[in-house]
Amino acid sequence: MTHIHGGNVYQYKEAADFSANINFHGMPQSVKEAAHAAIDQSIHYPEPDSHALKSVLANRESVPESAIICGNGAAELMFALAMAKRPKKAVLAQPCFFEYEQALTAVGCTLVHVPLKKEDGFQVGMAFVEQIPEDADLVILGNPNNPTGQCVPRPVLEQVLATCHRIGSMLMMDESFFDFLIPEDQERTLECTRIAGEDPSVFVLKSFTKMYAMPGLRFGYAICADTELLEKMRSGMQPWNVSLPAQAAARAAASELAFAKETAEQVARNRRWMVKELREAGVTVYDSVTNYLLLEGPEDLQERCLEKGYLIRDCSNFRTLCKGYYRICIRSQAENEALLAVLQGIWNDLNA
Amino acid sequence: MTHIHGGNVYQYKEAADFSANINFHGMPQSVKEAAHAAIDQSIHYPEPDSHALKSVLANRESVPESAIICGNGAAELMFALAMAKRPKKAVLAQPCFFEYEQALTAVGCTLVHVPLKKEDGFQVGMAFVEQIPEDADLVILGNPNNPTGQCVPRPVLEQVLATCHRIGSMLMMDESFFDFLIPEDQERTLECTRIAGEDPSVFVLKSFTKMYAMPGLRFGYAICADTELLEKMRSGMQPWNVSLPAQAAARAAASELAFAKETAEQVARNRRWMVKELREAGVTVYDSVTNYLLLEGPEDLQERCLEKGYLIRDCSNFRTLCKGYYRICIRSQAENEALLAVLQGIWNDLNA
Repeated sequence: MTHIHGGNVYQYKEAADFSANINFHGMPQSVKEAAHAAIDQSIHYPEPDSHALKSVLANRESVPESAIICGNGAAELMFALAMAKRPKKAVLAQPCFFEYEQALTAVGCTLVHVPLKKEDGFQVGMAFVEQIPEDADLVILGNPNNPTGQCVPRPVLEQVLATCHRIGSMLMMDESFFDFLIPEDQERTLECTRIAGEDPSVFVLKSFTKMYAMPGLRFGYAICADTELLEKMRSGMQPWNVSLPAQAAARAAASELAFAKETAEQVARNRRWMVKELREAGVTVYDSVTNYLLLEGPEDLQERCLEKGYLIRDCSNFRTLCKGYYRICIRSQAENEALLAVLQGIWNDLNA
Repeated sequence: MTHIHGGNVYQYKEAADFSANINFHGMPQSVKEAAHAAIDQSIHYPEPDSHALKSVLANRESVPESAIICGNGAAELMFALAMAKRPKKAVLAQPCFFEYEQALTAVGCTLVHVPLKKEDGFQVGMAFVEQIPEDADLVILGNPNNPTGQCVPRPVLEQVLATCHRIGSMLMMDESFFDFLIPEDQERTLECTRIAGEDPSVFVLKSFTKMYAMPGLRFGYAICADTELLEKMRSGMQPWNVSLPAQAAARAAASELAFAKETAEQVARNRRWMVKELREAGVTVYDSVTNYLLLEGPEDLQERCLEKGYLIRDCSNFRTLCKGYYRICIRSQAENEALLAVLQGIWNDLNA
């Protein structure tokens, strides 16, 4: 059975896409130019194992090059990790990105789903730590989590890390959306990138897909000091897994730190405005530190939005969620205003 | 340990590349344009599971769409096949493409290496069929084979197929270079594409990388009527494994049948000339039906060629080969003449 994701602009060709969590600025010019130039170079194979790119990333993240592995999108690395590690029992905070479950199921791993609670605003709390079984060998957290949009509070994350160390479990942090956080939100949690560069029990997934708006090019990477594990992952993958346009785009994106910072600030401004307006319109919307919002609405909200030309993400196929949960991307102020008007109209009808 | 392949233009930046087996014409204009246009579309995810592209390929190959799976290069699909099928005992005609062995070793498969013999000109013959063990569950053949450049003769291939049916083994045919064959060479062997569309025990790998000169973009596909196996392969892969530029380039390439036909004819002419000239210069060179030649030379031939600015493939890391075997690509007449002059000079020195 096919799992339905956001961002399927092929099925809904005419709609404005608020279903995928992509930076509304689009690709930085330098990234686009690098990708175009790479098309003309693509009569050659990509550099095996993305060697030159890894050195750029090591520099960006202040981790050793030996702790980096590059992927055809971060999703490829989740599958490669599952295949190489073959965990026996993994713990997931639900709802979360579907591919964790798909990759783990493919290798016969037992899954422990810890539901995040609506009454906690879907925040990961100490209750999560208490539910990690002693025999778990993999704990997975999105930071921030998709689709809930929140980070793991620093004290909770420190407890998770301590628990993983005590029971000998690996901690996999998916930081694909971390760059969307403004500094004050970053301080409330713990970026695990540098820890992963030193601590072999921490595995961090990073993506350029979202911030640099290049999901079609596919590029993600992971950081882990367990070089034996990375070697095992590589032994189950081709050496040319990252295409030449993706390598070139990623090299350009790695230097676009100001672009990322400005995006994070603008997203935060636009998000605060959108949350306020939505709440005033009577919409139940959850707190978020990133470029998407989880909200509740009528069971036909996706269809109603599509009628008006807006594609939003129906979250009913996320584990522990049900019909009536939706995710929207934070886009430009003008685009957000247009979607808001549609939602306000629908809520007005509901309350009429 | 890293396996060294041909085509590493990153290590030898200044040399003319005869080490990778890529169509010397480069990408057709339509393919290049499609890839460029797709860069600007890459703010979107690729279509999950390459749905639209599969329908184009099904049409091209006259097989059901359900029998097609698309990959980030054909190599990805070899790994996915190994992971999904987890064969116990596989038979390989050596020397062959290294990634078969890498993918099978990663899943703990026992490998039976059947050496192709120098005295048979490295041709796959009835002796290969006789060495397929009764308990084999996967037989792999390149048609044509890399690096030897030859096809499996039709009667031999029919016997391999009959043996696989009798013992219940899958037959994996790698036809990545099949499009380089002129019609008279095609008739001496058996293209298995359509058979694979109906017979669940045949799995055919196809690549657009070589003929359409897009190795940097990565695109390959496989055909197999065992839809349960394809579903299992998909369950261990992300849905966005083929990038948007690769999907777009492949859709354009699928219609470039005249380009492929003309390339095959020109490659055959250039190859016949090159073989004749090389033999006249005293070089031991093996018959080939495709765009590369296996030849013998002194142990320092690669270094000598590099000194003159030409990169050729040292084949000593192919199983059953040793120092002294090399592979060269067939390129344009002018390029071939230039490489020939270098080789003639080296052989003159040797015989001086």
